[in-house]
Amino acid sequence: MSSPAKLPPPPYYVVIFSTLRTDVDDGYAGMAEKMEMLAEQQPGYLGIESAREPGGLGITNSYWKDEASIIAWKKNAEHTLAREMGRERWYKCYELRVAKVERAYAFEK
Amino acid sequence: MSSPAKLPPPPYYVVIFSTLRTDVDDGYAGMAEKMEMLAEQQPGYLGIESAREPGGLGITNSYWKDEASIIAWKKNAEHTLAREMGRERWYKCYELRVAKVERAYAFEK
Repeated sequence: MSSPAKLPPPPYYVVIFSTLRTDVDDGYAGMAEKMEMLAEQQPGYLGIESAREPGGLGITNSYWKDEASIIAWKKNAEHTLAREMGRERWYKCYELRVAKVERAYAFEK
Repeated sequence: MSSPAKLPPPPYYVVIFSTLRTDVDDGYAGMAEKMEMLAEQQPGYLGIESAREPGGLGITNSYWKDEASIIAWKKNAEHTLAREMGRERWYKCYELRVAKVERAYAFEK
């Protein structure tokens, strides 16, 4: 189960990927898992948080050391193919935002 | 149902609130709804995206025009009380991050 990501102190970057899915499942879960495992192996990867409302909005926040790490991950060939398949099959619409995290606070009971 | 937020072009800010809930429901849903409605009325509010994995991670991304809007919302008295109740009752742990959105891309089928 995904948890709030424990990260080093800011600054660092986040890629916010907010999506609505199509009804097509063909290969989706396997590809999502594969991309998460591949992302973890990239230089500058810090962590990931992912949640999807049943039948509704999905949000994946991936955290990166700097912009160069994000751009390198974007250029990864397998990731590029996965994005093309995502637009073709799995996503009805999405918004992708790149942001610089400036402040962070944690709470634990 | 929450959708990927349609926003003006960057720059703008995002508050990423990643949470795990306790088993306590006492007043949670009503307060969450109330805070979302109250946030919408604040100066500088741009939009919100929210998703929770059943029984798992919740992510709420709220979007704001600038840091001053975020700080004013943080100081709102009802919001301050809600945050105290959240730490007391509803949240096992959370991470809150404030980030400046620099780039954004949209896709729609």
